[in-house]
This record gives sequence, structure tokens and C-alpha cells, in this order.
Amino acid sequence: MEQHNSKPIRCIVKLGGAAITCKNELETIHMENLMIVSSQLRQTLMSGSASSRVVGMDWSKRIGFSEPPLLESDCSDQLVVDSKTFVVVHGAGSFGHFQASKSGVHKGGLSKPIVKAGFVATRISVTSLNLEVVRALAREGIPSIGMSPFSCGWSTCQRNMEEAEISMVINAIDAGFIPVLHGDAVLDSSQECTILSGDVIIRHLAAKLKPEYVVFLTDVSGVYDRPPTDLDAVLLQEIDVCEDGSWYVVKPALLGASKPEFTVASHDTTGGMVTKISEAAMIAKLGIDVFIVKVGTEHSLRALDGSLLGEIPNDWLGTAIRLVR
Amino acid sequence: MEQHNSKPIRCIVKLGGAAITCKNELETIHMENLMIVSSQLRQTLMSGSASSRVVGMDWSKRIGFSEPPLLESDCSDQLVVDSKTFVVVHGAGSFGHFQASKSGVHKGGLSKPIVKAGFVATRISVTSLNLEVVRALAREGIPSIGMSPFSCGWSTCQRNMEEAEISMVINAIDAGFIPVLHGDAVLDSSQECTILSGDVIIRHLAAKLKPEYVVFLTDVSGVYDRPPTDLDAVLLQEIDVCEDGSWYVVKPALLGASKPEFTVASHDTTGGMVTKISEAAMIAKLGIDVFIVKVGTEHSLRALDGSLLGEIPNDWLGTAIRLVR
Repeated sequence: MEQHNSKPIRCIVKLGGAAITCKNELETIHMENLMIVSSQLRQTLMSGSASSRVVGMDWSKRIGFSEPPLLESDCSDQLVVDSKTFVVVHGAGSFGHFQASKSGVHKGGLSKPIVKAGFVATRISVTSLNLEVVRALAREGIPSIGMSPFSCGWSTCQRNMEEAEISMVINAIDAGFIPVLHGDAVLDSSQECTILSGDVIIRHLAAKLKPEYVVFLTDVSGVYDRPPTDLDAVLLQEIDVCEDGSWYVVKPALLGASKPEFTVASHDTTGGMVTKISEAAMIAKLGIDVFIVKVGTEHSLRALDGSLLGEIPNDWLGTAIRLVR
Repeated sequence: MEQHNSKPIRCIVKLGGAAITCKNELETIHMENLMIVSSQLRQTLMSGSASSRVVGMDWSKRIGFSEPPLLESDCSDQLVVDSKTFVVVHGAGSFGHFQASKSGVHKGGLSKPIVKAGFVATRISVTSLNLEVVRALAREGIPSIGMSPFSCGWSTCQRNMEEAEISMVINAIDAGFIPVLHGDAVLDSSQECTILSGDVIIRHLAAKLKPEYVVFLTDVSGVYDRPPTDLDAVLLQEIDVCEDGSWYVVKPALLGASKPEFTVASHDTTGGMVTKISEAAMIAKLGIDVFIVKVGTEHSLRALDGSLLGEIPNDWLGTAIRLVR
């Protein structure tokens, strides 16, 4: 596997499926959240730029978005996003999920006609979401480039990332673009096909690209000690990770909590909390700070722009998962 | 570069931009042509199948296309397209062209803000066309899989195809899918970026995959001896290609024509005819039959289903370009 010897990556951002789509409405984008995310990413990428004017990069004909075509002079003072390299990965939310679960793509078995049809239908759905995410970012002047894991030739073995030549992602970054990847249906060498989730992609990219930090944008404020719908749920604000991958809650201290309190049940009764922290801890273990934060808030903006590297301010709302040094 | 040791490829089909879009209307698909193409491809791929029922594979919510979700039983007798392997490549037509020419993406220079913005805008436009082509094919029950050259990591040097790992295309074919590629904006090692045309992709894939034949679907009946808008234009029906790449017109004989009559002017006054034949001849030279034919006709169906391999029937309308054996 190639080494990443070119531009250092500042941040990998996960746009959670629940954050950018309406969970309970089939193939419906949460436009408000997507637009705020795009705007916050623009602010982050273009901070330090003299020009604050946005040069849209989606020139497509589109009902409701009839932008006049650009003139060359309009671009002359456009910031070229070069110094701050981001990678965006998004989940599927209400795109793809229906098609995948209806047909069982994640369980494999491409020789079954229903699985093959579901594979095609899933890819159509998730790539159409990808196109809309790329468009939203481009309208904010972010040079976004959609890249599908299937087209990149990525495949899995027993649902874990197997082949993953990432040179095309690195080349896109080095050329000054912001790659936008997504959870996708892919081939699997053990079960023919499966769903490659955005989280697995992020873990892989984080290990290869070694970004300074990873931000997960979700529809809740962070990771709680039990399902956030519970009235008593407490937001876990700071979690420390040891070199061996074990972790413990540092803040809030009142919990006095350490890992053993959260035993992983066969059904994770903490609302997936333990799984979420364990996945984040695998990234943090590499020395990469992880922030899990609610989309479209002042807190997400602070996570994105890197102002949390170092001391976490008391008024920041979210979950920070970091390696103890 | 890897060798293609797996399934033999029957045909590479080019859907010309002029055939599937409305040339003079920005980002407008020629739905009628696209639907006929999809239907003809289905007939071709599924001939010999007992079932003639179409199982749609686009399950997306969509105004005007509200298909009920499939039940597993609906798929039970679906033909699994396995024996007939096709690859589809489409042009851009009224998608991408405006964005690319406005910004000069084909001329390179990504450091110019207008070019970078144009690169992003071009990719948004061509990938949105790709998604619609994939959807149209999927609605006909064809297991189509969109694959973008940029995402495949393909790049050019002096506008010629350079890096082109095609294992992801082969793996998709071997898994029983029909890859759908397209002309795209890509990185170029000599001029930073350019446009990789569908025709260049086809030439490259033909050399690597060695299909039995290649079909170019266009908006005219084939290649003429002068611009087809000329009243006197004569359709060139059969062209023979020699091992050294030279070629001559065999039919119609009345032309008595051989290559020297068509000298390449700096402006190809034959309406691009010489260029078109020369490109096709480069494929034919490999022993691969090339058919150029009008989209959505009985003639295109005969070209697609392989019934022209061997003797060309007298009533077939189109241009066949083949190696003299």
C-alpha cells in the first residue's frame, strides 16, 4: 500500500446520514442542515482569506438554483483552497438504507436476483445523495469532488476493508480538491457483496492519511451514557484513550465512570454508545483527536476549524475522544 | 498493467452525447432515445431468456417514476445477465460541455480559479448525466453500475490516457454488472487537468478488454463522405482496415473511393469524418468489429445483438469498419 508523502491532511469530516437526511422520509435531504454544514466548511476552509465572497462551482441548470454562469473575472480573487486539506465522508441516512435492507445487500449473495437488484438500487440511491452533497458544497465555493468507493475499486473481505488503493484520493487532495466519499455497496471476497459504511471508510482513511483530527457531525450533541432520548442521559464530554485502545470517561467527573460500567450487551442498551466510543477510540489511538458534535451548531464550527486542538473549552458541547499523552 | 483473464467481453457500447441528450438544450436528456437504447440493450442482454418480464432496479423515489418496491418473489425468475458481458460508455452532449468550454478545463491549468471551478462544475454535470443513464438502464432490469473515470483514478498525460488500472471495471463485469462509464474531467500530468473523452476511454478499454465488437450509437445513420447535412452526402457502409491501420471504403462501390480522396484538412471539411474513421480504424486494427449506427433504430438493435458479425446484410443501414482478414 502506498504511503502518503504529499500534503498533510488537516481533517476528515463525517457527515452522518442522520444529520444530512430526514431519517424517516425516504430519500429526503435535510437541506437546512446540509446548507449549514456547507457554509461552516467554507468558513473553516477559507478562514484567513482576504476575500469572503463565495464563488459557486455548481453551474448546473436546476429548478430553483438558476445561477448565472461565471465570468473569468468573477473568479480572479477567489480563494484557492490549498493549505487546508479536508476529506468529507458521508453516510446514507434515508438514502440507500431502504434498498439495502429490503434486499439484504449487507448479507451478501450476489447470485440471488433480489440481492443483485438491491445492489444496483442501493448504489443509485447513495450516489444520488453524493451528487447532492457535492453540489451543496460546490455552491459554497468548495472544490468538492465526488468519489464512490465502488468506482475507486475498494472491496471488503468479511465486511472489513480489503483492497483500498487510495492514490486517487491523495491525487485529488494534492490537486487542491476536497474529495467527498460515501458509504456504498461494494464487492466482498468472502460473501460476494456487502455495505461498506462511512465509518469504516473513515477508520481506514484516518490510518492511511493521518489527519490532525476527525469530526463526526451527528443529529445529537455527542455520545451519551444511555440513549439520548432518555431524560436522564448525560453527555460524555471528554474521553481519554490509552495506547492499548482502552478508554475512560474524564468529564463529566460526576459520573466517576470508567469503562467497566459500560459492558457491551448483545443488544447495546446504551444506544450504540459503547460501539461508537470503541470505533472512535481506534482512531484516537493513532494520535488523532476525534470530536463528535451536533451538526449546524456553533459547537460543530469550533470542532471543524480546529480550535479544540489542545484544551477543550468549558462551554463546548460535544464529545472529545483523545489519546492520553 | 493487469491482463484480463476472466470473462470475455462481448461488446462495448458508446452512447454518443448527441444521441442521448438534446444538443442545443443545456442539460436536457433525450429521454425517448435513452429509453429506446435501454430497451434495446435489455433485449440484447436477455435474448435467450425464458422470462421476458422486466424487473426494475431503480427503486428510488422519483416524481413520475413511483415504482412499488420489489418483493423477493418478483425476482425469482429474473434473468441473471451473466453470459453476455457489455460495457457502456457515454458522452456528455449538453451536459458538461458548457461548463468545460466556459472554463477551458480541456486546456489545463488547475491553478487558475476559473479552471478549478469549471472542473468541479463539469464533474457535477457529467456525473448527474451518468446517474440518469444508470437509472434508465436499471429501470429496464439491466444491472448497471455507474463508474466515474476520475474516481477510478484514471489520469492522462498530454491528454492521452496514462494511468488506468481497470481491475475495478473487470471486477464489476465478473460480478455480473454492466459498468457505465463516461467522459469526465481528469487530472493530467503534463497540463494538470483535461477532459477525457468517451471515445478515448473506449479505445483504451477495447485494447485491454478485447471485446468482440464495439457499437457507436449516434444521431445520424453512420459516417458520410461529407457533412451529413449536405444533400449529396453518401453513407459509407463498409470500410476495410489493414493491419497497418490504413483503410479504404468498400461499399458503396460507386464511390470508387480509397483513402487518398479524403485528405485531412486542418479543418476537417468532411465533418470530422476522417477523424472518426481513423479512430474507429485503431479499434478495428485489433480485430474488433466496429459499427457506427443511428440510435434507436432496427439497425442499432442488429448492431447491438451481434447479428452483423460476419456478412453485413444489404438492408442494414450504418457504417461497419472491420479488419481485412
